[in-house]
Amino acid sequence: MSNSGLPFDDIRALMAHLPPLDAEAAAAIRARDAQLTKPPGSLGRLEDIAAWLGAVQAKAIPTASRPLVAVFAANHGVAARGVSPYPASVTAAMVSNFAAGGAAINQICGHLGLGLKVFELALEIPTADITVEPALDEAACAATIAFGMEAIHGTDLLCLGEMGIANTTVAAAVYAALFGGEVRHWVGRGTGVDDAGYARKVAAVEDALALNRDHLGDPLEVLRRLGGREIAAMVGAILAARIERVPVILDGYVVCAAAAVLHALDPDALDHCVAGHRSAEGAHGDVLERLGKKPLLDLGMRLGEGSGAALAAGIVRSALACHTGMATFSQAGVEDRG
Amino acid sequence: MSNSGLPFDDIRALMAHLPPLDAEAAAAIRARDAQLTKPPGSLGRLEDIAAWLGAVQAKAIPTASRPLVAVFAANHGVAARGVSPYPASVTAAMVSNFAAGGAAINQICGHLGLGLKVFELALEIPTADITVEPALDEAACAATIAFGMEAIHGTDLLCLGEMGIANTTVAAAVYAALFGGEVRHWVGRGTGVDDAGYARKVAAVEDALALNRDHLGDPLEVLRRLGGREIAAMVGAILAARIERVPVILDGYVVCAAAAVLHALDPDALDHCVAGHRSAEGAHGDVLERLGKKPLLDLGMRLGEGSGAALAAGIVRSALACHTGMATFSQAGVEDRG
Repeated sequence: MSNSGLPFDDIRALMAHLPPLDAEAAAAIRARDAQLTKPPGSLGRLEDIAAWLGAVQAKAIPTASRPLVAVFAANHGVAARGVSPYPASVTAAMVSNFAAGGAAINQICGHLGLGLKVFELALEIPTADITVEPALDEAACAATIAFGMEAIHGTDLLCLGEMGIANTTVAAAVYAALFGGEVRHWVGRGTGVDDAGYARKVAAVEDALALNRDHLGDPLEVLRRLGGREIAAMVGAILAARIERVPVILDGYVVCAAAAVLHALDPDALDHCVAGHRSAEGAHGDVLERLGKKPLLDLGMRLGEGSGAALAAGIVRSALACHTGMATFSQAGVEDRG
Repeated sequence: MSNSGLPFDDIRALMAHLPPLDAEAAAAIRARDAQLTKPPGSLGRLEDIAAWLGAVQAKAIPTASRPLVAVFAANHGVAARGVSPYPASVTAAMVSNFAAGGAAINQICGHLGLGLKVFELALEIPTADITVEPALDEAACAATIAFGMEAIHGTDLLCLGEMGIANTTVAAAVYAALFGGEVRHWVGRGTGVDDAGYARKVAAVEDALALNRDHLGDPLEVLRRLGGREIAAMVGAILAARIERVPVILDGYVVCAAAAVLHALDPDALDHCVAGHRSAEGAHGDVLERLGKKPLLDLGMRLGEGSGAALAAGIVRSALACHTGMATFSQAGVEDRG
C-alpha cells in the first residue's frame, strides 16, 4: 500500500486491474478430462472444479497441496446492544480454543489435512457501535484490508473463516446496505438469539442504516461504516488471492459479506471464489444467489470458523485428485465408448 | 447360511430380527454435543450424523477409523440388448483399472484415507438377459447375497459402490417393479446412451417387466429376476452391516436398488444407512425420497464406483472428529450463553 492519496485509493486501483481467469488452462483440463477412465460428465461438479482451479491458477495441472484455512477474529461495538446470547469476551476465548485445538475447525482441519491460521484483529479494541458512528475510519479500514492481503501468502487453496461475537449483525447491515430490501430479511438468529434479542438485532441494523443512509452508495464506505475488522481483512484476503491466483473457498454468512463488498465493486471480482456451503444463517441462500454462487454443500451448518469452507475443501481437493491421478482410457487399456 | 429350506428362507429369517438402533447411545451423544464449544445446533447435519453413528454402533463414542469402500462388480446379459454405449468388456477392464489405482474411486479413497476393496462377481458369467429369463435362480441369488454378507467384515464405516456395464438398466427394472409408474420415469441415460440406446433401454425394462409380471410382489423375487449379482451382493452387505452394527453410506442409482429391495421388505431396514449423495442418474432423487433419505451431497455426479459415498465419508468422518475432538465450554474456559 502506498501512502499517497486517500487510503481507499490503492484498493480501487487494484480492483481496476484484476487478472482474468485463464481460459486456456481450463480448456486443457477439459480436454484431458475427456480422456479419463469415466463416462464424460459423470463426475459432475468435480469436473467443473478441476477446470476452475486451473483457470484461477493459470495452470494446466493445478495444485492444492498447501491448503489453508485462515480465520479472522474481531470484536464489535454493536455487541453492547445485546444482539448475541454470548458475551463479547467469547471472541477471545474462542481464539484461545483455536490455539488449543479444541474448536470444530481444528477437528475438520486435522481430519482433512488442512493448515489453519488464526488472525486476531485488535480484539481488545472493538470497532465503534455502528448504530452510533462508523465502525472504522478510512485509514483503519484500509490498513485492515492491507493486513488481510498480507495474511494469506504461501497457500494454493484458501478457505476463509471468521469468529466475532455480533458479527452476523454487522454482516446483515452490510447486506441490507448493498442489496436493499427489508432489514428482517437479512437478519438471522446468529448463534441463537431469542425473540427479544432478535428484535434488538433488527433495531440495531435499522439504526445503523438510518445513521449512514447518505453514505451507502460506495461499497467500501458500506464496509468501513457497517462492517468490522474481520470483514475488512477478508476483503483484503479475497482481493490478494485473486491477484496471486489463489482459489478461494468462501464460508458462510459473514465471510460472504466480505465477498459481497467486492462483488458490488466488480461483479467479476469473485471469479476465483467458490461457495463452500449454504449456511443456515438468515438469508445466506439469497446472498449466494446474488453473488451467482452455487454452494458445494448444504448441511444446515451455521457455525462460522470456516467450518463449511473447510469441509468443502475435502471435495475440491478430491476433485483435483481425480483429475490429476486418474488413468486415461489408453493408459488403462479400457475400451472407450463405441 | 444353512442348507435347509428354500434359499431365501435364511434371508427372510434374518430380516425378521434386525437389531434396532440404540436410542440411548444417541441421547448420550446429543447430551455431550450440547456441551461442546459451539452454539447449539450450529453444526447442523454434522450433529445428526454423530448421533446416528452412535445409534447404529450402540456406542456413546462411535468410531470411523476403519472406513471401507466396497465395490461390487458384475456383468449383465441384458448388455447384449445395446443399452450402454460401452461394451460389456469394460466391466473387467475397469476392475483392472481399480487394481492398478487408475480409477476415480482410487483417487478419492487415497485423498480421504479410505480403504478400498473390489469384489468381482463371476464377471465371465453374465446374469441371464432379464428380457428373456430371470437374471439368477434362487440358489445363485441367495449365494450372492451370502457372499455380500461375508465381504464387509472388519470395517466400522461401510461405503458401497459398484461397477457393471448395463447395471443402470437392471436397477431401473428393479425400481419400476418395486415402485410402479412409467418405465421412462425410472430409466436414465446411464453412462450416456444416445436416443436410440435410450429407447432400447426403455424397451428392455418394459420387456423384462412384462415377462415377470406375475412374480413381482416379493422384493426378493424382484431382485433375482430383474437385478444382478452386484445388487444381490449389496443386499447382503447392507443386511450384514445392520446385524454387525456397521453404519453404511449409500452411493447412487445402482447401490440404492439394493437398498430399495431391503426397504420394500422392511421400511426400517435402512435405519443404519445414510444417503451419500444424490446422483444425476435418472430418478435417483425420487428413489431417495421413497427411501426417506436426504442426501449429504448433490454434486451432479453419476459415476458409480462408490464415488459419491466415498466423498460423503469425508463429511461423516469430519462430523465424528468434531464430536469426539472438540473441547467442552468448561474445558476450554469459554463462557456459555447467558
